[in-house]
Amino acid sequence: MRTVRILVTNCNTTRTMTEEIVRGARSAASPGTTVTGLTPAWGVESAEGWLDSYLSAAAVLDTLRTYDGPPYDAVVLAGFGEHGREGVRELVDVPVVDITEAAAHLACLLGRRYGVVTTLERSCGQIEDSLETAGVARNCAAVVGTGLGVLDLGDTDRTEAAFLAAAERARRAGAEVLVLGCAGMTGLQRTLGEELGLPVVDGVGAAVRLAESLVALGLRTSRAGSYARPVVKGRVWGPPEP
Amino acid sequence: MRTVRILVTNCNTTRTMTEEIVRGARSAASPGTTVTGLTPAWGVESAEGWLDSYLSAAAVLDTLRTYDGPPYDAVVLAGFGEHGREGVRELVDVPVVDITEAAAHLACLLGRRYGVVTTLERSCGQIEDSLETAGVARNCAAVVGTGLGVLDLGDTDRTEAAFLAAAERARRAGAEVLVLGCAGMTGLQRTLGEELGLPVVDGVGAAVRLAESLVALGLRTSRAGSYARPVVKGRVWGPPEP
Amino acid sequence: MRTVRILVTNCNTTRTMTEEIVRGARSAASPGTTVTGLTPAWGVESAEGWLDSYLSAAAVLDTLRTYDGPPYDAVVLAGFGEHGREGVRELVDVPVVDITEAAAHLACLLGRRYGVVTTLERSCGQIEDSLETAGVARNCAAVVGTGLGVLDLGDTDRTEAAFLAAAERARRAGAEVLVLGCAGMTGLQRTLGEELGLPVVDGVGAAVRLAESLVALGLRTSRAGSYARPVVKGRVWGPPEP
Amino acid sequence: MRTVRILVTNCNTTRTMTEEIVRGARSAASPGTTVTGLTPAWGVESAEGWLDSYLSAAAVLDTLRTYDGPPYDAVVLAGFGEHGREGVRELVDVPVVDITEAAAHLACLLGRRYGVVTTLERSCGQIEDSLETAGVARNCAAVVGTGLGVLDLGDTDRTEAAFLAAAERARRAGAEVLVLGCAGMTGLQRTLGEELGLPVVDGVGAAVRLAESLVALGLRTSRAGSYARPVVKGRVWGPPEP
Amino acid sequence: MRTVRILVTNCNTTRTMTEEIVRGARSAASPGTTVTGLTPAWGVESAEGWLDSYLSAAAVLDTLRTYDGPPYDAVVLAGFGEHGREGVRELVDVPVVDITEAAAHLACLLGRRYGVVTTLERSCGQIEDSLETAGVARNCAAVVGTGLGVLDLGDTDRTEAAFLAAAERARRAGAEVLVLGCAGMTGLQRTLGEELGLPVVDGVGAAVRLAESLVALGLRTSRAGSYARPVVKGRVWGPPEP
Amino acid sequence: MRTVRILVTNCNTTRTMTEEIVRGARSAASPGTTVTGLTPAWGVESAEGWLDSYLSAAAVLDTLRTYDGPPYDAVVLAGFGEHGREGVRELVDVPVVDITEAAAHLACLLGRRYGVVTTLERSCGQIEDSLETAGVARNCAAVVGTGLGVLDLGDTDRTEAAFLAAAERARRAGAEVLVLGCAGMTGLQRTLGEELGLPVVDGVGAAVRLAESLVALGLRTSRAGSYARPVVKGRVWGPPEP
Repeated sequence: MRTVRILVTNCNTTRTMTEEIVRGARSAASPGTTVTGLTPAWGVESAEGWLDSYLSAAAVLDTLRTYDGPPYDAVVLAGFGEHGREGVRELVDVPVVDITEAAAHLACLLGRRYGVVTTLERSCGQIEDSLETAGVARNCAAVVGTGLGVLDLGDTDRTEAAFLAAAERARRAGAEVLVLGCAGMTGLQRTLGEELGLPVVDGVGAAVRLAESLVALGLRTSRAGSYARPVVKGRVWGPPEP
Repeated sequence: MRTVRILVTNCNTTRTMTEEIVRGARSAASPGTTVTGLTPAWGVESAEGWLDSYLSAAAVLDTLRTYDGPPYDAVVLAGFGEHGREGVRELVDVPVVDITEAAAHLACLLGRRYGVVTTLERSCGQIEDSLETAGVARNCAAVVGTGLGVLDLGDTDRTEAAFLAAAERARRAGAEVLVLGCAGMTGLQRTLGEELGLPVVDGVGAAVRLAESLVALGLRTSRAGSYARPVVKGRVWGPPEP
Repeated sequence: MRTVRILVTNCNTTRTMTEEIVRGARSAASPGTTVTGLTPAWGVESAEGWLDSYLSAAAVLDTLRTYDGPPYDAVVLAGFGEHGREGVRELVDVPVVDITEAAAHLACLLGRRYGVVTTLERSCGQIEDSLETAGVARNCAAVVGTGLGVLDLGDTDRTEAAFLAAAERARRAGAEVLVLGCAGMTGLQRTLGEELGLPVVDGVGAAVRLAESLVALGLRTSRAGSYARPVVKGRVWGPPEP
Repeated sequence: MRTVRILVTNCNTTRTMTEEIVRGARSAASPGTTVTGLTPAWGVESAEGWLDSYLSAAAVLDTLRTYDGPPYDAVVLAGFGEHGREGVRELVDVPVVDITEAAAHLACLLGRRYGVVTTLERSCGQIEDSLETAGVARNCAAVVGTGLGVLDLGDTDRTEAAFLAAAERARRAGAEVLVLGCAGMTGLQRTLGEELGLPVVDGVGAAVRLAESLVALGLRTSRAGSYARPVVKGRVWGPPEP
Repeated sequence: MRTVRILVTNCNTTRTMTEEIVRGARSAASPGTTVTGLTPAWGVESAEGWLDSYLSAAAVLDTLRTYDGPPYDAVVLAGFGEHGREGVRELVDVPVVDITEAAAHLACLLGRRYGVVTTLERSCGQIEDSLETAGVARNCAAVVGTGLGVLDLGDTDRTEAAFLAAAERARRAGAEVLVLGCAGMTGLQRTLGEELGLPVVDGVGAAVRLAESLVALGLRTSRAGSYARPVVKGRVWGPPEP
Repeated sequence: MRTVRILVTNCNTTRTMTEEIVRGARSAASPGTTVTGLTPAWGVESAEGWLDSYLSAAAVLDTLRTYDGPPYDAVVLAGFGEHGREGVRELVDVPVVDITEAAAHLACLLGRRYGVVTTLERSCGQIEDSLETAGVARNCAAVVGTGLGVLDLGDTDRTEAAFLAAAERARRAGAEVLVLGCAGMTGLQRTLGEELGLPVVDGVGAAVRLAESLVALGLRTSRAGSYARPVVKGRVWGPPEP
């Protein structure tokens, strides 16, 4: 059995979050899969809003571009609703799966409509746009905020209570399946799913499994059209030294 | 490592096609997965058109309903564009993945737009509707027919030529990834992909991997809303004896 | 004046419901129209959910396929939100009108947005999909359930109260016209319309009138593309004898 | 048998066209229906383009507003793609059917996609907008111009040739059913349908039958929301005398 | 600096409203812009509903057609949600901007979703259709009525209270920016914006600025396709003398 | 007359292109407007593809964040189809207009459908997504590539020939107005417009005028919801020194 090596890339610079994400990824991965976490060398300590998301996208691209660790077979992008996935598809020669789209793809298989529960309300728009361009927004009934910041998610009780309240709003909007709308929520899916009586999809796990699937099936990003390799040209990653 | 047992259900009664599908499914499956083929006990010898599709849906449901073989962890429905998936989701307690949606889900991860190449032109509408309600039609650039019937697919040379011509039409419509639009095409993805220089997704393999993923992640169809268990009531599966 | 002979096909096996539907159809029909009821020889005693709907579709197709009564000029399919209409369009050489689409077509002529009030909440999704593929979902403001099963509709008082409550939800969602979302509701349109001060469209009556119209105008289903005649091939309608 | 009295309103001031439309309407009407033609007292001699369409809408509204002939049970608006229908719905207490929407409603029952063949290319946009707001654009594959002006349609040979060429373009775009996109084409549906092997729907006939249906079913325009009666206020219909 | 001469056309015959609109237009215009008000010579004293809107469209077209005042460089159509803009684009050789679309265009630049607050609920549908065909409905979260008639807007306190209540509904539906949905509301944008803490866009000011922009950039309506010049033909604008 | 100070931000580091853009911006600006060009301190020498676009977005954000030149009243983002606009809306307190959306907004006022002609085919998808999320894709008939790279645009003859060929494709797809799909094309609009007989909109000029309009009308980005100010937190803009 061939080993699949997945590089799970955090969208922010908080190493404890990378560790949590890696834990979640490993618990979801197949036996023959290795998971390596990658923390961007620069960028945001937590991505909340568009400015953070664009900074994060560049930092993730730069970190992957300059990565010189062991080889990998697929990239998982672990920023829910964050930008960058199309750029990574251009950059690397292996399959790339973003946790936003991944969660939505699996959620579509589990019910007629799904809902996303995320952190701050301000992130809802980004997530909606990300689902739209990924081609999976049609069956999304609602994207709902909990009012919690990414770094507040450590407080499990508060997170669970806020999640349950938001989940109820998504359900009233027609959601039959829920998606954890933040990589930092990874791990909540089982407890919350039981309380809610609904399937809860975690994007990290979903993305790991989808990445494994693409690797196993020998599928790679199309180079025809949108995701051709980057043109060779002058690029400067970050401000010049003063 | 836990074994995942997948029941791959053909949509028609042609056993040789079940065998081919099972071969395709096995070659795509993880090491720890067993694949059992199921051929409907009644229905159509090949599904081409709406009437066939509805007959097939009932036959598949009945066959699954009365199935008394070894237990299984997931169902793969191997009729491309055929009806029935929502009914099977009501019927069984395990995840259900249809090859139509499965291929589209993976195709969305590989390019910005995908195209489907299928058999007869008359099947295109059904496939479009199936993708639409599955929530993955947004990034479908075209569904194109080859003019070949399901049972003509045995003639490999003719099939390949017809596929390449149809693929060219899909590519001109914007497709960056192709989907094999018939379970009977399983196996063509590698040769055709190389000739075309595009990723080619086979729905059977895609569905097997997605089914494994759902099982591994402990995810099941939502019982809230659309896919509640069938109500207990009088049902007669097939005409009374004369 | 030429007589138009309409075959009104119930989607379930409950003969009393066929009788009610026929009564509704006759009261809506033109003087020169004869209405014959057809009850499927097999299938479901009431169609509630996707599994029932697919079983019903095959049973209706088989019953029409083997029908050997007097000739008819059009078929009305009297299962609201149920599958099968495209298959029947392939099968028969006369116009086919489904009560779901029929009600929506007329409702569009009576207000800017319409709403559907149906039986169980679980049926809403099927109806939405049926309206979508029929091409008339754009002006549908809401599909709302009453919580009543098909066979509960005999209790008129309860049905009316539940309908009025659900109608109010549809109206708040923007509906200016209502549609009775179940063949078993036929007959309620006048009383309910008066109480609500809104037009209420019954699909059975709508379909009968549309079927008459197509016949009178000499229009038949297109055989070009989607609804070509079924291909000649092996088909088995129902399980083999044990 | 109750008589249904339909007022068929031309959108332009050309009386010979009103006569043709009335002939078409009568040949499509039920035995118990009387058809009266109404020619606007002012407006355009043929409606081609938006300016004409808005002038026509006001003239039609004024003509109906000041109409003092025998009572009528329904209004048919015989300007394909022309404005005004919502205003007429506010104005009169009987059902109102526009030939644009009427043709599309019936066409949807006859195939999965329909196409419209109209006069000048400049009219295509108006027709698309009219179908969109009527809620029936979803299954429209194409609106195609013939390059002929409304008043050129008298030359039958040229019209037929131009129609056949345009129909071919619609068919290639996916149309399985065709719609005559101008009231002045009424009468061509049978000959053209035979040559093309496709059903061809004439909006005048379709609207007459739909209007009869609404009357027979006791259905009227909803007064809740959009089409409430016009508010009483000062209105001047046409320029003051100099 | 070249002067830009804008003809601001009221949609109704109430001269005091023209004056208010002109005041609003002037306060929004660039220093080098002159604003001339044009009151239709006939039509409605206030446009509320479809009938009024079509009457208004013809009256505005006739008034512009027969206008013989000083030359102008652009036309602003100051009827929110009213018909006619495409006809005016055919008629005149200068840019034409409708306040409905203008407000929406600017609103899209200020937030991810906008809402419209208008007069009577019955106008909401027209506004939705107008935004849709103008191509700017996608980011409209809601169109909400205040229940006030156009001519009630003189009562500032009542208008403000009603506007604030309706604005709250729009905000709950996701609006981050508000649009004043009636020309008669011009002037309220600053006070209301401050109270709400949201940007409020007035269509009259928006249209004046967009018209100036088109003139300055040397851009005119395309004559290719939809908005070709009206065909020369017989037209009668208003009823014949008795 | 108050001066409006516009900061026009190039998306790439090529100063000659900033100069050209500034020239285009100045020739489009009102007399009372000053235009300052801003070249990102890092990033791409030309943005072609998603990776470039995300790098460019971060570089533009960082350059604006650290900008310490004279104050400005609005920002124009001069990267056609490039990312970043929502982030800049969060960052600065003045109106932000992106040339992609700006061109589309004006194009919608000039014809019923517009088309975009851009550089490489690979950029088409990004532009489509940018128009979609900006809310102005509905009336876009086509986005067409010329096959030229951004830095090839200096060769005017070749650029014009390629533009005309691509414009013809857009026109056949229904475009009545064209948009220059690259900041580097600024200046071509007049010559090309005359040859084509269609209005041609340059995004730089359009954005300058829209920015002036927002400033003059006192309108600023909404802080409610999506574009709230960035949360205070740790951010590192660029890789740490080695």
